[in-house]
Amino acid sequence: MDQIKQVAIVGGVHGNEFSGIYLVKQYQQQPEQITRSSFTTETVWANPEAHYANKRYLHSDLNRQFKTVDLANPDLSNYEQSRAKVLNAQLGPKGNARIDLLIDLHNTTSNMGACLILTQAGPFYNKLAAYVKMKMPEAIISRDEDHFAAEDHALMCTLGRYGVLVEVGPQPQSVLRQDVLELMHRMTQHILDFVELYNKDALPALPKQTEAFRYLHSIKLPMNERGERIGMVHKNVQDRDYQPIHPGDPLFTLFDGTVVPYQGETVVYPTFINEAAYYDNNLAMSLNEKVLIEL
Amino acid sequence: MDQIKQVAIVGGVHGNEFSGIYLVKQYQQQPEQITRSSFTTETVWANPEAHYANKRYLHSDLNRQFKTVDLANPDLSNYEQSRAKVLNAQLGPKGNARIDLLIDLHNTTSNMGACLILTQAGPFYNKLAAYVKMKMPEAIISRDEDHFAAEDHALMCTLGRYGVLVEVGPQPQSVLRQDVLELMHRMTQHILDFVELYNKDALPALPKQTEAFRYLHSIKLPMNERGERIGMVHKNVQDRDYQPIHPGDPLFTLFDGTVVPYQGETVVYPTFINEAAYYDNNLAMSLNEKVLIEL
Repeated sequence: MDQIKQVAIVGGVHGNEFSGIYLVKQYQQQPEQITRSSFTTETVWANPEAHYANKRYLHSDLNRQFKTVDLANPDLSNYEQSRAKVLNAQLGPKGNARIDLLIDLHNTTSNMGACLILTQAGPFYNKLAAYVKMKMPEAIISRDEDHFAAEDHALMCTLGRYGVLVEVGPQPQSVLRQDVLELMHRMTQHILDFVELYNKDALPALPKQTEAFRYLHSIKLPMNERGERIGMVHKNVQDRDYQPIHPGDPLFTLFDGTVVPYQGETVVYPTFINEAAYYDNNLAMSLNEKVLIEL
Repeated sequence: MDQIKQVAIVGGVHGNEFSGIYLVKQYQQQPEQITRSSFTTETVWANPEAHYANKRYLHSDLNRQFKTVDLANPDLSNYEQSRAKVLNAQLGPKGNARIDLLIDLHNTTSNMGACLILTQAGPFYNKLAAYVKMKMPEAIISRDEDHFAAEDHALMCTLGRYGVLVEVGPQPQSVLRQDVLELMHRMTQHILDFVELYNKDALPALPKQTEAFRYLHSIKLPMNERGERIGMVHKNVQDRDYQPIHPGDPLFTLFDGTVVPYQGETVVYPTFINEAAYYDNNLAMSLNEKVLIEL
């Protein structure tokens, strides 16, 4: 029977997302909060130098450095590329990891509440999603597991045999909000409780169907031919993560006042609306479809 | 009669406060929005390199570099200290400035709405405050003019013969929200309209009394003797800028769960609650008293 013996809770992959950093500190001070009888939990602070610099990263995004081929490439040697190799040695190696479950804690500036992001498929994840949503109905389940084989996934959480992201917002970069910290703590506790029950084959009856949002693609901010931004997310969309956008709904406002409607042909559900960290790539939001996780 | 002939609208003193940067761009594209018959308006982007670096500042806070003695000190030569001298030559010199009114546009991560901050005293400011509050009842008037002579004031807005800050939030650092941009635009328009009427001696009847908040002092986040943060702003205070804090009300939550009450003896009104940029100095919020501006 599948058993989760080693869990790692990772905070601070991004240096200016404070909740994970402080939640890891809290768990180090109060280890009873992450202690369960059937497995061992360790805490990891992934990117201290980015936090000291009060930045997402020093040289490159740590949460994009975990492809198997990149971990094996000695020429990738900047700070985050080096941290990825160290974390791979400490928690992995990816594909044959010491860590059975890696819980990676993140914040977003978007109004996403407490969101459990699944980047791989399988019955473990389906049961986890059903359990978390049952225990915490305000939780959002997000799926993004169809696009890559695990070895090609660049995310930190793919280092573990299993891995998930806990993504909580809205919280500005470089701020610690008590309400957001508590949401992250609650979701993390439900995950740990699930693992305990999973190991003991003592899960309660789980819902046969659990609502989730499946990632489709991201859309960019309006730009001119010189690559300069010429508009912003429409105020009707701002803060309305997970709310439907219908064909023709306002999507962007250009700086000259023009409203740009959504031109897709189906209803979509946005996430990471106006996320600060995605401006680098001029991303405006991610679009999703609503799906059901079936047990 | 006092006349305002030259107005400067300044954006981007802080590189990661996006509204002012984009509002200045908007006004450059649509100059009719800042054109009035009785004065000339120019726009200034104060700190481009900090914006390109996506940071508040490169070397030191530009909005703390405008003391007369510092502007005259050639040894202060880092990027922001150099920018301050350039801006002083362009718009000042401080104490005998070419610019009659400097409007400095800022964002905060705190839930402060549209806030007009007055850093100097006098009938011009009192009338401006009364007019803005009359035209825009949701505006907040904030006074912080009692503490320094103008020459000792370090803020950019003190470069002009008159100067005010327009401070709008909540907006995460490095994000552009349409609602916040519009609030900043509306307040700026009311200020320009006021100047036009002031110059023409055509002000409408203004309220005899206008509510304002007067800065008292700032308070720090809880720290231990090693200077490490041991707590955060209590969730009951978060987002409640301008709402009264009574003696004994919860103020902080320590990471061990202890609630720390407010220990002052009078009712105070907080601003800049949990502002991201103030973590450097471990500031938790500013405390204010409620006052009346009398005409």
